[in-house]
Amino acid sequence: MKVVIVGAGGVADSLSRAVKSVGHEILQIYSRSEQSAIRLSEVLSCSYTDEIENIDRTADLYIVSIKDSALSEIAERLVVGRENGFWVHTAGSMSMNVFGDVDRGVMYPMQTFTRGKIVDFDSVPCFIEANNSVNLNKLRDFTKSISRSVYEMSEEQRRYLHLAAVFCCNFTNHCCAIAEYMLAKKDIPFEVMLPLLDETVRKLHSVEPKVAQTGPAVRYDKNVMAKHEALLKDEELLEKIYKLMSEDIHRFSKA
Amino acid sequence: MKVVIVGAGGVADSLSRAVKSVGHEILQIYSRSEQSAIRLSEVLSCSYTDEIENIDRTADLYIVSIKDSALSEIAERLVVGRENGFWVHTAGSMSMNVFGDVDRGVMYPMQTFTRGKIVDFDSVPCFIEANNSVNLNKLRDFTKSISRSVYEMSEEQRRYLHLAAVFCCNFTNHCCAIAEYMLAKKDIPFEVMLPLLDETVRKLHSVEPKVAQTGPAVRYDKNVMAKHEALLKDEELLEKIYKLMSEDIHRFSKA
Repeated sequence: MKVVIVGAGGVADSLSRAVKSVGHEILQIYSRSEQSAIRLSEVLSCSYTDEIENIDRTADLYIVSIKDSALSEIAERLVVGRENGFWVHTAGSMSMNVFGDVDRGVMYPMQTFTRGKIVDFDSVPCFIEANNSVNLNKLRDFTKSISRSVYEMSEEQRRYLHLAAVFCCNFTNHCCAIAEYMLAKKDIPFEVMLPLLDETVRKLHSVEPKVAQTGPAVRYDKNVMAKHEALLKDEELLEKIYKLMSEDIHRFSKA
Repeated sequence: MKVVIVGAGGVADSLSRAVKSVGHEILQIYSRSEQSAIRLSEVLSCSYTDEIENIDRTADLYIVSIKDSALSEIAERLVVGRENGFWVHTAGSMSMNVFGDVDRGVMYPMQTFTRGKIVDFDSVPCFIEANNSVNLNKLRDFTKSISRSVYEMSEEQRRYLHLAAVFCCNFTNHCCAIAEYMLAKKDIPFEVMLPLLDETVRKLHSVEPKVAQTGPAVRYDKNVMAKHEALLKDEELLEKIYKLMSEDIHRFSKA
């Protein structure tokens, strides 16, 4: 397929490389930052633009990978003059209807993308939706060409999926950021946590999270929890997080 | 060394197998649950007891792996009549002084242990402390015989380490348990989260957590966060956790 990529951030970076590597033709990269557009277009050996007006009008598929707030703002302007294209975005929490009444869909690649760190797209679960069965078939074929895990999912289901992803990825990462911060107070490098973290996640490949829980909160060991809270007494938000998470772990264990 | 293991839970299980496998002699297992004591003693081909009075008095090293609250309760009784032994516990948040004025120390294996799931001890970071340099040397040699990652650490440092472990392991696991719970509302299996979870943690082997953060909270994308909060509106504790974690992610990103 002839593809235009709208966006040049972390998702667009990994996605566009995957799209090109399996033989699709990338016509153009658009980014409102000319520098980002140039950088990615050089990687992909394609043209670029930083002007919405100059986005190519002949593509079969437009993949829009930009911040949700930007997507809301510019989706309608993107489509103008390109109403015959198939418009797909990659945002987990957004409706395909942001594009209006055109061929449209969503391809949500559920992974954490950091610009500059290329993700192997083949192992990224992709959740797709389209406005009719013809487009769904088209999007399924396309997505299967770049990922071996393709699921159909309604907008309603995808909302929950996106929320769950925030818990599994961003909040997990923040738990580690808090750990790093507390360890730094005693000059302990975060690296010492990695075997524990790896095992915690490895375990979840065979045991469901609720059952896998260990530690003071699930045992409701008030003595240990009080000691931990004492270490956090000058860290108001962290102490609140500690108490809430402990309370909720205990609640889950009883449910 | 001739070793007595006090406890038969998850830590005692993996630890005692490691101790035996490198050639130390396990004289006996004590557990207040006779059934647990029998089970582990059969694995280790050693004797067992469920009576404190009958714990062997000739061991070089007593390793106590029981719940923190039980440790506080019975530590002194354990030592009576065995004052010449070297007493070591495995509890991250407890002082070695629970044993009183004997040869004493701590060997905290920082890993998540679930009874029945044997952990390869060689890769478990172990944090040691002892009441004098002779005992520290003895404990270091012993611990190095079962783990390739042995660190000396003061009680004060270990307190922070233990707290960090709760964030990295228990709270991370709970974030996944919440994700599982929310996904179940829409009949989505937790398994779809595993590639994201794996990548989140893999990234932390090369990027520090604070820098690795992605998602709506670090971008402070109020639109997305409001949608997530709406999905949690009937889940008081989960909504609170969502808001607090998002606020704290944002705070970290500015710091």
